[in-house]
Order: sequence, then C-alpha cells, then structure tokens
Amino acid sequence: MAKSDVKKVVLAYSGGLDTSIILKWLQTTYGCEVVTFTADLGQGEELEPARQKALLLGIKPENIFIEDLREEFVRDYVFPMFRANAVYEGQYLLGTSIARPLIGKKQIEIAEKVGADAVCHGATGKGNDQVRFELAYYALKPDVKVIAPWREWDLTSRTKLIEFAEKHQIPIAKDKRGEAPFSTDANLLHTSSEGKVLEDPSQDVPDYVFSRTVDPESAPDKPTVITVDFERGDAVAVDGVKLTPAALLAKLNELGRVNGIGRLDLVENRYVGMKSRGMYETPGGTILLAAHRGIESITLDRGAAHLKDELMPKYAELVYNGFWFAPEREMLQAAIDKSQEFVTGRVRLKLYKGNVTVIGRESPYSLYDQELVTFEEGAVAYDQHDAQGFIKLNALRLRTLGQRRKRMAK
Amino acid sequence: MAKSDVKKVVLAYSGGLDTSIILKWLQTTYGCEVVTFTADLGQGEELEPARQKALLLGIKPENIFIEDLREEFVRDYVFPMFRANAVYEGQYLLGTSIARPLIGKKQIEIAEKVGADAVCHGATGKGNDQVRFELAYYALKPDVKVIAPWREWDLTSRTKLIEFAEKHQIPIAKDKRGEAPFSTDANLLHTSSEGKVLEDPSQDVPDYVFSRTVDPESAPDKPTVITVDFERGDAVAVDGVKLTPAALLAKLNELGRVNGIGRLDLVENRYVGMKSRGMYETPGGTILLAAHRGIESITLDRGAAHLKDELMPKYAELVYNGFWFAPEREMLQAAIDKSQEFVTGRVRLKLYKGNVTVIGRESPYSLYDQELVTFEEGAVAYDQHDAQGFIKLNALRLRTLGQRRKRMAK
Amino acid sequence: MAKSDVKKVVLAYSGGLDTSIILKWLQTTYGCEVVTFTADLGQGEELEPARQKALLLGIKPENIFIEDLREEFVRDYVFPMFRANAVYEGQYLLGTSIARPLIGKKQIEIAEKVGADAVCHGATGKGNDQVRFELAYYALKPDVKVIAPWREWDLTSRTKLIEFAEKHQIPIAKDKRGEAPFSTDANLLHTSSEGKVLEDPSQDVPDYVFSRTVDPESAPDKPTVITVDFERGDAVAVDGVKLTPAALLAKLNELGRVNGIGRLDLVENRYVGMKSRGMYETPGGTILLAAHRGIESITLDRGAAHLKDELMPKYAELVYNGFWFAPEREMLQAAIDKSQEFVTGRVRLKLYKGNVTVIGRESPYSLYDQELVTFEEGAVAYDQHDAQGFIKLNALRLRTLGQRRKRMAK
Amino acid sequence: MAKSDVKKVVLAYSGGLDTSIILKWLQTTYGCEVVTFTADLGQGEELEPARQKALLLGIKPENIFIEDLREEFVRDYVFPMFRANAVYEGQYLLGTSIARPLIGKKQIEIAEKVGADAVCHGATGKGNDQVRFELAYYALKPDVKVIAPWREWDLTSRTKLIEFAEKHQIPIAKDKRGEAPFSTDANLLHTSSEGKVLEDPSQDVPDYVFSRTVDPESAPDKPTVITVDFERGDAVAVDGVKLTPAALLAKLNELGRVNGIGRLDLVENRYVGMKSRGMYETPGGTILLAAHRGIESITLDRGAAHLKDELMPKYAELVYNGFWFAPEREMLQAAIDKSQEFVTGRVRLKLYKGNVTVIGRESPYSLYDQELVTFEEGAVAYDQHDAQGFIKLNALRLRTLGQRRKRMAK
Repeated sequence: MAKSDVKKVVLAYSGGLDTSIILKWLQTTYGCEVVTFTADLGQGEELEPARQKALLLGIKPENIFIEDLREEFVRDYVFPMFRANAVYEGQYLLGTSIARPLIGKKQIEIAEKVGADAVCHGATGKGNDQVRFELAYYALKPDVKVIAPWREWDLTSRTKLIEFAEKHQIPIAKDKRGEAPFSTDANLLHTSSEGKVLEDPSQDVPDYVFSRTVDPESAPDKPTVITVDFERGDAVAVDGVKLTPAALLAKLNELGRVNGIGRLDLVENRYVGMKSRGMYETPGGTILLAAHRGIESITLDRGAAHLKDELMPKYAELVYNGFWFAPEREMLQAAIDKSQEFVTGRVRLKLYKGNVTVIGRESPYSLYDQELVTFEEGAVAYDQHDAQGFIKLNALRLRTLGQRRKRMAK
Repeated sequence: MAKSDVKKVVLAYSGGLDTSIILKWLQTTYGCEVVTFTADLGQGEELEPARQKALLLGIKPENIFIEDLREEFVRDYVFPMFRANAVYEGQYLLGTSIARPLIGKKQIEIAEKVGADAVCHGATGKGNDQVRFELAYYALKPDVKVIAPWREWDLTSRTKLIEFAEKHQIPIAKDKRGEAPFSTDANLLHTSSEGKVLEDPSQDVPDYVFSRTVDPESAPDKPTVITVDFERGDAVAVDGVKLTPAALLAKLNELGRVNGIGRLDLVENRYVGMKSRGMYETPGGTILLAAHRGIESITLDRGAAHLKDELMPKYAELVYNGFWFAPEREMLQAAIDKSQEFVTGRVRLKLYKGNVTVIGRESPYSLYDQELVTFEEGAVAYDQHDAQGFIKLNALRLRTLGQRRKRMAK
Repeated sequence: MAKSDVKKVVLAYSGGLDTSIILKWLQTTYGCEVVTFTADLGQGEELEPARQKALLLGIKPENIFIEDLREEFVRDYVFPMFRANAVYEGQYLLGTSIARPLIGKKQIEIAEKVGADAVCHGATGKGNDQVRFELAYYALKPDVKVIAPWREWDLTSRTKLIEFAEKHQIPIAKDKRGEAPFSTDANLLHTSSEGKVLEDPSQDVPDYVFSRTVDPESAPDKPTVITVDFERGDAVAVDGVKLTPAALLAKLNELGRVNGIGRLDLVENRYVGMKSRGMYETPGGTILLAAHRGIESITLDRGAAHLKDELMPKYAELVYNGFWFAPEREMLQAAIDKSQEFVTGRVRLKLYKGNVTVIGRESPYSLYDQELVTFEEGAVAYDQHDAQGFIKLNALRLRTLGQRRKRMAK
Repeated sequence: MAKSDVKKVVLAYSGGLDTSIILKWLQTTYGCEVVTFTADLGQGEELEPARQKALLLGIKPENIFIEDLREEFVRDYVFPMFRANAVYEGQYLLGTSIARPLIGKKQIEIAEKVGADAVCHGATGKGNDQVRFELAYYALKPDVKVIAPWREWDLTSRTKLIEFAEKHQIPIAKDKRGEAPFSTDANLLHTSSEGKVLEDPSQDVPDYVFSRTVDPESAPDKPTVITVDFERGDAVAVDGVKLTPAALLAKLNELGRVNGIGRLDLVENRYVGMKSRGMYETPGGTILLAAHRGIESITLDRGAAHLKDELMPKYAELVYNGFWFAPEREMLQAAIDKSQEFVTGRVRLKLYKGNVTVIGRESPYSLYDQELVTFEEGAVAYDQHDAQGFIKLNALRLRTLGQRRKRMAK
C-alpha cells in the first residue's frame, strides 16, 4: 500500500510502550492523522494515562476515544460463547480470541464516525491476533485499509524499538528497556502468557508467570461452596445476588483466583500454522463452564445436548481463528441459542485448590424431576418390557451383519 | 420366548446374591442347563468364591468358566477408546460402557464352545447395560436367545428376592438382606455408583459413596510428579518403568486414588431415554486422558487433532450406547488409529488434591521442536509477510458479504 | 393397554378399505368412540367420500373432521425441509417422512379439542411411518394412548381382513379383494411405492408402478425452459407468476410429470433396522431442489454453504426417522433458516426427459456479481500476490510434517 | 526469492504455448536448468510433440520426463475418492482437484531424482490449482522452492505473452494468437471449462463449450443398459468384462459420452475466496458414482452408510482445497476404506439422454437378501411387537419435554 494513500487511521492503543511507538511510527511513516482507541475490557489497567500519553504524542483531543466495554464484552461475546461450552482443542477457553472481534468492531465504528480510511493494530506477524483483528475489520468495512506495523516496519529488535522511542521522545518505563521474559494479554475473561521462558514445552511454567490466580497449593485449606443462577443459558447471579454480566464474571474471577482455579499450560495449534505453548489463567471462566454444563445437564434434552457437543469443536475453531463475524458462526450460534430457552436454574459448586466441582443442580425446568421420571398415573411411566423391543430393533442391522459374516465363513 | 425353547444358557455370573438368584431362577423357570461365566475385569473381588458358590448351586464343574480379562480389557478396549479421547457428554469417561462388550463377547465365545443357545445377564430394564450386553450378543451371534431376568420375572421387590433366595437355599450375607443405599459397578477403569441416595441431583453425594479415591481434602499436601510414556497412542510406562496395559492402569489408579483424582458427579442422558445421576471414580483414567492429550499436543498435526475432536462426541456416544461391535465404531476407530502413528513420547504431570496438570511433554516426533519452527537455512522459515496474503484471502468472502450488506443498505 | 382404558380415539382415516376396517375394529374391540380425521395433503383423492363412508360406519357427524392441509403442508413442512437441501442417503427426497408429523399434529389437536384420550394410525409394524406418527403424538401429547392396529390385531392375512370387512358390512371395491401388487403413499410432494413386485432389488421396476410421471422416453422431445423465483430460501413464483406454496409445488409437479422428472428406484435403510426397496416419484420436488441449490450457489457464502452441507445428512436422518418435533431438528432448522436471509432471486432451468438442469441464476443479492468480484477502485480487488502467503501458511503444518518424516527416515 | 537462488527447476510442461513461454521465461529470468515433466492423465493429447518442443526450446534429453499416469491416476486417486462418494458443494465430482496432487507428487519425485531444488507450475494466481499443486509440493518436499510464474511475471496480457513468445522463437499455432473464449482442463475423469464467455452465471453455456459429451437432445433415442461390477468398493468390470482402472473409466466415459451424461453447469466457491462459474463434463464419473451408491445400497450397513454421508462433505472439501497429502484426509480415507470390505457385486444401470438410473443391484454380500430379512426358523425374524418398545423408548425424552411444556403452560 502506498504510504500516501492513508489519510486517517484508527489505532488500537493501549497506552503502553509498544503501541506508543506504533502511534509515532504511523505519524512519521504514513504522515497520516492518528485516532486512538483505548478500551477497557477488564484488563485491569487505568485508561486515563492512555489519554494523557496520546495527548503528549500529539493526538488531538477529539481524536482520542476511550471506552469501557466490559459489559458489552461479557454480555455479547463471552456469554454467547459460553452457551456453546466452547473449548478449543479440548482445553482452551478462548479468552484472547473472543476479545479481538469486539475491539475490531469498535475501531471500525470509530473509523466510520471520524471518516478514517484505515485501522491499525499492534499484533505480531506470527500470531493469531492479527488474523482475528483483520477478519473483523474486513468483514465490517470491506474497503478499509489495514496497517499491521509488526509485519511492515524494520524495528525488528528491542534495541531498534528503544532507539526509535528515544529518538521520538516516547517515555520509556525502566522495566520496559529490556525484553520481557514473556508476553501477556489480559481481559476480564483471562490472562494469557507466552513466548521466551515459556517456549520449551518440556519445561515447567515458572511461578512468576502467574498473575491472576494463587497457586492451588497456597489456596485455602477449606472449600468454598457457591451457587450460580442461570437464565436462558446465561449466568445471572452468584450466591443468590443478581449481577450484571461483567460484575458476575469479576465475582467469579475473584472466587476462582483465591481458590487457585483456571490455570492451563497448553501446547496449541495456531491458525497461522505452527504450534505454540501458552499459559492461561481463566479463573471465572473455568467456574462458569462447569456451572453451565451443570445446569444444562438437567434442563437440556439429550438430542439437543449431543448436537451441541458435536457442533462445539467447529464453533470453537471458528472463534479461535477469528471468524466471529462469519455467517457460519452466526448459524451455529442460532442453533445453540435455540437450545438455551429453558437453561434456567441454580447450580451449587465446590471450589477447592484448583478444583471446581458441581455438587448440586436444580431448575423449575428440570427434565430430571422425579415427577417426570415416574409421572402421575402411568402418563409417561417407563415400561421395562419396552426395552426389549428397543434393543431388538437397534440390534437388527447388527444381526444382519452377523448373519452375513457367518454365511461368508462357510 | 417359550420357556421350553432354551436348552443351555451362559450366565454372566458374579457370585453375588443377585446373579445367584438369577442362576436358580433360570434353573427353575427355564429348566435349562446353566453355564456360569465369571470374569476378572479388575473389579477387585476374588473369583474363586464364585466357583464355590456355583458348585453349591448345582452347576457342573465343566460348566463353570472363570477368566482373568484384565489385560485384554485394557489393551483392546480401554486403550483404543482413550486414543479417541472419548468423553461422553463432556465429562464421563465411559468406565462401565467399555466393559460390557467384552463380557458379552466372552459369553458368546463360551456359548459357541459349549453349544449353548442362550445367554443371560443381570442388568436391569431401566439402564444402559442391558442394551450394551445385548447389542454385543446379537452382533456376534445373531441367532442367540437372550434372557434378561429383570425384565421378565415377578421378583419385583427386595422382599420377594430374599424370599426366593431363602426358598432355594441361596446363602445370603447379612448386609444383603436390606436394600443397598445405592448400586455400584466396578472394573479396572472405574467405579460407578447410582440410585437411591444419589437420585436427587440437587443433593451432595454422601461421603460413604466413594470407594476408589480419597477425598481431595484428605489427599497429601505435597504434589506428586510423575511421567507417563506413550508409544503410538498407548501408555507404556509410568515413571520410566515399562508396564503391561493392566498393570499400568492399576499403577495410575493407585496414584490417582491417593491424590483424590477422578471423582465425577454427573447427571447424564441414558440411551433408553431418561436422565440419571451417577457418581464416578476414574482415578487412573483421568490421569491417562490428560497425559494422552498432552502427548498429542506436540505430536499430532492440527488437521488430525481437529478432526479427532470433531469425531469424538459421536465415537463416545456409540460406546456409551453399546455399539462397540458396529461398523461405524470400527470406521471411526480406523480413522483415530491412523492418527496415532507418531503419538509417542513422554508427558510429565503433577498430581495434587484432585488436580492433574500436564507440566511438560517431549517426543522424538515432536512437531513443536525448535528446529522445526525455525528450520535450518530458510527451509520452512516463517515469513511474516505471508500472513498478509493469508488473511486477505481468508477475508475475501467476508469482504464480499460486507460489500453486499453495504449495497443493500443504500 | 387394557381395551377398556380407551374412551375416545382419533383415527387417521383415509376412507379406504384398510382404515375402514380399522375404524370398525376400534369400535368392536375397544368399544370406544371413534373420531375420524381425513386430511388433504394433495394425495389426489376426493375427501367427501370419506365423510360418507364414516357416516355409514356409524361415526357421528360432529366426530368427522376433514381438512385441507395442502398449504400448511408445503409452507411449514416441505419448504423448511427444502431450505436444508435435505436428501436421505444421498437420494431420497423424504416425501413420505415429511407428511407424517403434520398428520400426527392434527390428530393431537383434534384429540385435545374433542377430549379424546387416544389416537390411531394405519401404518404397519415393519415400517418407518409408525415411528413417525407416534413420535409426533408423544411429543405433542405425552400422555396420549396410541393404538397401532397392525401391531395388535389378528387380521394377519388379506383373507381375514376381507372376512372382517364382510362381516361388518364394510363396502369393498372389487379391485381391493385381492392383495395389491405393491403399496403406495401419495401427497403433494411425492408418490412412493414399495413391497411385493418391487421387493427384489435386482429386478426392474415394472412400468405400471409409476403413476406421477411419464417415462422419460415418452416425454416431449423438446426441452421446457422455466424460471423459479425465490425469496429468503422459499420458492414464490414459476415463470414469473406468484403462487402460493401448494399451488407452486403443484405447478412444478405438472412440469416435472410431463418431462419425466423425479423417478427414483432406491434401496434404503429403514429406522426400524432393515433395508427396503422403494420407488419414488417426486417431480416437483426434484425441480425444487435443483432450483434451490442454484439460487444458493450465487447468494450463499461459502462458510454458510459448507456448514449446511455438513449438517444436512443429520437433518435428513432426523426427518426420515420421525424426529420432526425434536429439539435437535429445531436447532438445525434455526441454523439453516439463519442462512436463508438473502437466498432470493431467479433460477432458470431446463427440463428435458428426466433431466433438470440449472442454466442460469441471478439475484439482487448475488455474491458473484461482477461488480463485487472486481470492485470499484481497488476496494476488494484481488491481489494475486496474496495467494502466495495464503498457500505458504496453509502449507506450514504440512511442511512441518514433511520435515518430521524426513528426519525419521534418516 | 532471489532469482539466483534457483539451480534446477522441474516444470509441469504440457507442450502447449503457455507452458512453453514459462519454460523460456524460467531460462531467461532465473537462468536455471529446466527439467520438463509431461504426464498423460488421459487428457487426450499426444505426448511426443511435447518432447520435440522441449528439445527445440533447448531442454537436454535427459531433462525431459514423460510418463503415462493413467492407471495410477484412476487406481490411487480417482477410485479412493469415489469410495467416498465425494461431491463438492453437492454437485462437483472434483475432476480437476484430484489430478493435481498426482502431478505435484511426480514433479517432486523427479526433483529428488535429478537434484532439482525448485518446481514450477502454470496455474494462475486466482484459481484453486496453484493451491493444490503447491500444497502437494510442500507436503512432500518441505524445503522445495516454488515458482508460480503467473503470480510473478509482468506478462499480464495476451499481447505481452505473444510478444515474448515471438521474441524467443516459440512456435505459435494460429488459433493461439487471440485469447481463448474460455479455458479448459482435461483428464481421464473430466473436462472443465471456465472463464470469459462462461463468466456470467445468468447466461446459458454456449454449445461449443462442450467437448466430451453429446447433447442429451442428440443422444440415442433408445436407452443403453449396462452392468458395472465392484470389488471392495472399486469398479472392476463393465458388462461383465474385467478392465484395468483406467480402461474401465475410459469405457464408462465412452458410454457416458454418447448418452449425453455428466454435464454440469455450476457456480462454486473457490478456496481462494471468490465464486466462479464452471462447466464440467464427467461422463464416466457420473455413471460410476451412481453405480457405487447402488452397490453400497445393498452391501453397506446403515451405520456405516450414514457415517460416510456425514464425513463426505469434509472429505470433498479437503480434496477440493488441495489437502490430499494431509493427515486428516488420510484419516477419513482410512474410515472410508474400512467400510468397503464387502462393497462387492453387480449394478445394472440404464443410460438415456443424460440420465443414469440404477435399475438393479445384486451381491453375494447383500444385506438385503430375502433370506436375511425373513431368516430361517425365527433366527432374526422381525417381531412387530418390538416396534412398540422401540418407539416408546425413543419417544421417552420427547414425552418428557412435552410434559415440561405442559407444566410450564399452567
């Protein structure tokens, strides 16, 4: 793309050193107007310093956008995904994957509002996040120009980055001069860590990597018992207290944190083709998944439950790969949401040193209910003799196969 | 079936009160010769008493079959199933389901050998086990007659059963007079408990139900770190010591037991149509699944891994429903086994108060290996610029959709 | 079921000999009040004679229900199914399967209205239709009593049936005295034939079996070209003339009939476990499927289209097996319907001696449109260089596998 | 890639104008040694002229490779794919897709033999074939260098190409000076045509595009009846005459050709992201698919058949996208091949003016066989009363759902 082509760019700006360097690099390389977008997705950082830093770097006040997206993030992204019990490669709760489409969507909305023709993100050229950001951009604004500095510039070493920062008077925190021993991403759902000291999958994750959970060995010696209430597939209360989506997830995070819940050390397959090793902490999400499966176990019919289990891996793959705004993800979501109408009730869970255990579930919509199993006056009463016919017809084709085998053996 | 039709029946005989009553009932009702089959699948009971009891009940010595099936069980049933990472309804490790086909197969083999025309099992008319037994019977001997006493007789209460036993001089252990507070099934892979005190899914499982694992809260305060070695998808050694399949599973069971690993409290959907609540203890299997996923994470290609994840729910459903000897299970197994050629290497795990955590994995066949990621001299070196083309072509159809949406909005 | 238990039964009544015998048998055996329900699903028979016959057999006028269901049938059953491109076992358009749930639903509605406690159908005990009827009954009225005469009575031969009819003064058409050479089912979507002369799958279908289509060899020597218009996935017009759903299907049937379209000679797998050979004529449906795929080909995104193709076999199996009113069918329908929002446009087809060929398609929502492929001013313009990156990242995991193979070979 | 990096390149060379230009362009631009590979896949062209032309263009005799791959193509690529009943997007028989991996494999084998470090193909930058070639290359020789002239050079118009050819004394047939009205690909399985005059999907395909089949309207007025014999899933004889794979497909092609069979006008979704319109002629393959489904219909169990149908769309997508040498395609193949053990027997088909109709099937392994349906002496005899139990247990969960709905309505 010719550098002169870009007039105004919306940058996903954290206020940190790296995105500040990007900001300045955009100004100096593209000579274009930069609009910053800083979002609170629950990563646990103040947003106002980002505004100050942006001003300092010459961004016009009207070009600085800061938004608290926590409720929207949990309500419209995390919760729909948890309705699917989505787990990537059997284990990963997709904490990073699910945040990217929302950030991308907001950048595009701002671009439309301010008349920007380009967007820019700070994801590297080897990871999944570049894909997730850019698929969101392109889906929502097909003619947008995308700038991915890490794939374009020549600031290919820490030294060069620091030099660039110094040259452009970007403030550098002392601990940012050297290279970080690993990189992290955080939001209300999880914190991920990867790279450097974590790269060798045969080696333990060092203690200092963990930031969101206590070590199970240091967690309390007594279990914590909680309840989570669901309505139509979404959690709405903890211990009987109604909470907004973000507040609820924060509450579960705190409960998970102290009880050492939600750590995951994983080698996963990236969409861009290589394997990588990551360390994830998803305290609240881990509780939420267990609780959701718990309430589904009594409110969901077998046919619905099994179909959900069959569709889930594809759904999770789509989210992981960044296809949130793709028709096939929306189709799967429609199927999943259809199943959640009666996924309402209360789950009791025990949290203890890394374990989340469902110990009770109840629902006005329970399909387990004694009344339903036995029924009044023969209504649906189970007749054991029916089992014989059930088995014999299910066996018919197997018997036919057996008969053929026998005939062949003659 | 006319009672007089049956000449000789092979009974799955545990030596316990219930199958002893069945034995006598077969003799008195069908007037047929009874052949007993007692198998050791690692349920932890002596088999010789079963022989004595059978003799006492009038079974001819040549009609008593006792067999140690532990190695065959783990090698040919448990291990193939774990290659699939099979989990039913997201959680159940299929410990009971996987044992039934083997017992059924052995009964049929004995029936062929002794010229019996019928087989008999002691499973109830409301459960899955009757289906699993009988589908195996019919698949392997399509003309076999199946006797399922619990669906046929009028011994419909504990009192009637005890009366029948007394009338026929069947010895009754004191603790068997009253009704058990729950029923159990056990083998080398797991112990399951269900019924009675467990029936209300809103209530905790009482402590005395657990028999195979210590309570995580009572488990050691220090983690145990172990290694499990795999060859072509199957575990072959623990802590570097080569073990036979059954010995290996027994070893993992012991490690799991002391560390409180593998308890599961679940409401599941039975094949016969109703929900039931079960409590499962699968100490070694829980470790095995984590370890297998661990070694797969570095040795399995993404395409293979994701296909496995997509096929798994169907595979698990087939095993749960009793379709082990069905062509579609064998087709899925062929696909899964094909993927395991290089699933070889060592996994390091931490066991701690209910938690199993993979903390390291290595393999001569690793696809993660640094060498492979970086490659010598540009061989497969990853070029960041390729990511742009990758993203743009993946985005093309989304952009086209976006363009349509835009056009429509005009 | 004790015969005296049934008070009032709603019978699916065609007015033919068999269901008239059933009617009388219900009266004489169950001694219950009989309510008849006769539906017009486009089977091509007058309904009034059924009323006369019911009156003749002693049914009270207020107990005779006759309804024209053709529009509801096509709109709410056939069309939703065609949105899915549903084909069972690669070939069968599910003409019989899709009609049963609607009939069952209407019987239940009438049962609720007249206070009947039972329903009755005339399907045999070896076929799929009994399952389809009864699953609908039970799903919609779980406490209903179901009477399936063919599984219960002792009228097990044609002679006995005729005797029973004569004894009860049921009029017998001359051609009904002997056994029919095959049995048929017909509705607006198709006519099926099976049994007797059709049973040997190695033998040709005799000419006289066909009733809905001319032989392709006798069809006109000139092709007929037509257009079919779609809106949101459903056909709405033929040759530019707007038609109601039933009228449209009737129109396509006529076009298909004269051009020899929609014959199928198939060996299929019944849900009850055996194979059967059927002969189907689905003239309009065959055209509709081709047309629907044609309009989807330009209006559906690849992701949506491929997901639909993956879900279809399961959807078709559910319909075939009778699980129309099951949550998993409804979930799949939700996903499918979600995809049809822009499946709008016109398809041109050539009909010629058994062939249906799409020869043109256009849509205001086309994703093919030249404008979109090229785009204005580089907006979404395809850059050939992107293909290299696309391929290289897709190849990365395959290269890694190749590298391992090489390493192993050393 | 630096031009000087390439020492020796294996070019997929047809002998036509385009690949001759590529040959010369490789010599002049890369200055490397060129090795040509010309394969007979049944495209219906002489190969010797390619040798003469290569010599003329300065290729050393020992660098010219010509191979007849017809048998290998059909036996190891076409037949395994037809075992899967693979059809892309419901219609396309994958004729081009299946040929590319074999050509790619041969180029790599030659590269290994002659010590070449690069391979080159003549596929354009907008199509699927570049992907299919290159995924094969990279999978089989991960360090290979790939040259894709159409993505690299500046010969971006017909005029420039002709100029280049003239400048380098490449002979130009008269009819090659202007641009072709559409482009084609042919092999023993099919001929495809696309581009230019075919681009508008609302317009008919002009008559002159078809080359492999007569127009159904011009086909004989009398049907041709043939038999096809299968062994383990592969066709082995036509009309009772045993034929090699390639000879058999050629025979079916001829039968299909004269009867106007196998034309397809399709808008499909390319892997690289856009829709394209293609016209395919697959005369023999169309017959083969019908015949294979026919023999499967009596020899394949329902469980196996339905699993195959569910896996097929993914299998077809993998083949279409070029992932022949990917582990997931091999896993699916293992599952499919497992199912074909008894897919043996004879199918009788009627060919008539574009129609292929199965009119009879028989097999020593038939699961339909009357003997098996009725069975001797009650062995597997179907008992109609079993149907009741079968239905009632299948209905149980639906009744439970109905009961809940009722309860909720109160």
